[in-house]
Amino acid sequence: MPASDPMGRLQALLGKLPGVGRRSAERMAQALVRDGENLLPNLVAALREVEETVRLCSLCGGLTLKTQDPCALCRDPRREASQLCVVEEPSDIPLIERAGAFRGRYHALLGKISPMQGQGVPDRRVEALLKRIDSEGVREVILALNSDVESDATASYLADVLAKRPVKVTRLAFGIPAGSAISFSDPVTLARALQGRSPVGPS
Amino acid sequence: MPASDPMGRLQALLGKLPGVGRRSAERMAQALVRDGENLLPNLVAALREVEETVRLCSLCGGLTLKTQDPCALCRDPRREASQLCVVEEPSDIPLIERAGAFRGRYHALLGKISPMQGQGVPDRRVEALLKRIDSEGVREVILALNSDVESDATASYLADVLAKRPVKVTRLAFGIPAGSAISFSDPVTLARALQGRSPVGPS
Repeated sequence: MPASDPMGRLQALLGKLPGVGRRSAERMAQALVRDGENLLPNLVAALREVEETVRLCSLCGGLTLKTQDPCALCRDPRREASQLCVVEEPSDIPLIERAGAFRGRYHALLGKISPMQGQGVPDRRVEALLKRIDSEGVREVILALNSDVESDATASYLADVLAKRPVKVTRLAFGIPAGSAISFSDPVTLARALQGRSPVGPS
Repeated sequence: MPASDPMGRLQALLGKLPGVGRRSAERMAQALVRDGENLLPNLVAALREVEETVRLCSLCGGLTLKTQDPCALCRDPRREASQLCVVEEPSDIPLIERAGAFRGRYHALLGKISPMQGQGVPDRRVEALLKRIDSEGVREVILALNSDVESDATASYLADVLAKRPVKVTRLAFGIPAGSAISFSDPVTLARALQGRSPVGPS
């Protein structure tokens, strides 16, 4: 088949998905053609269903149904409006929900500062964050960002942007993961765990 | 959104593609929802086009258009019918073609023996191979299989199956890759290169 064939087009599109290289895209496309379990038509149907029914919440940026915007979390009156948890990606929200330790609201940045890839936090998400702080009675902004150089840069940037707002800005603690041991921790993790040490003693 | 939502269904299907784990499927699904470049509708269109136009050649098992079966390679009268190159996957065929060192025909097994995953070579592809040997005047079967335990098992199995046929069965040479050095080669590669050594001298 020529280079500009249907398989080539499918592979090029699959290769645009995160974490999918040229060779992976090739294997996926082949599996879709060879498959005996109707994976291809089922995938088409699932993609179309997502296209038709799913969107990002216009308020927090999390995933929601098109029939339900703002999302259930944003509309829940039992959620604390005073605490706003800032995450990088919509998928971070259910992870924090599962931890069961947060009762406030969320705001997804939909990006982070990544000079190597020429990317930043979308301006409209930062503007939306400031608007929410001004209008929703937010008193604490918790930066629930990852632990890497880009996320650190994003945290610094947001701390600067938020400096003039009357809010406390905090960031998730870094340290030894639960159930892990010092011997399994890398030097950077240990250094951050030391910096974040907290007093213990008779309570 | 509930667990049985459109995103969950899409993620489950993406997770069935080769090399895609749960977390990768999640990231892909998110990218498809968030994307601003129409990746989702384009992907749906490309999948449907492949579904409608592409098939495996009923003879060699390679990729071809539905309007062109058997494929162009199988119908090309200039290809040597006496040499049959057995590959594992359809995608191996263009790779060997690009090497430009083979002028015979192909036969894709569409699988290999993998006891750990409970998989084998599809019986119908082995039967088709025997039928082609009997009817096409094949004199040499070249096993162009990979270099791993499953491929070795597949080669042994095929050598047994083909033992009663009047054909020579050969396998691709193993050795140091072109442009590489001994110091970059692992012990197994070196051992195989030694076993496959060939005489040199004044010609």
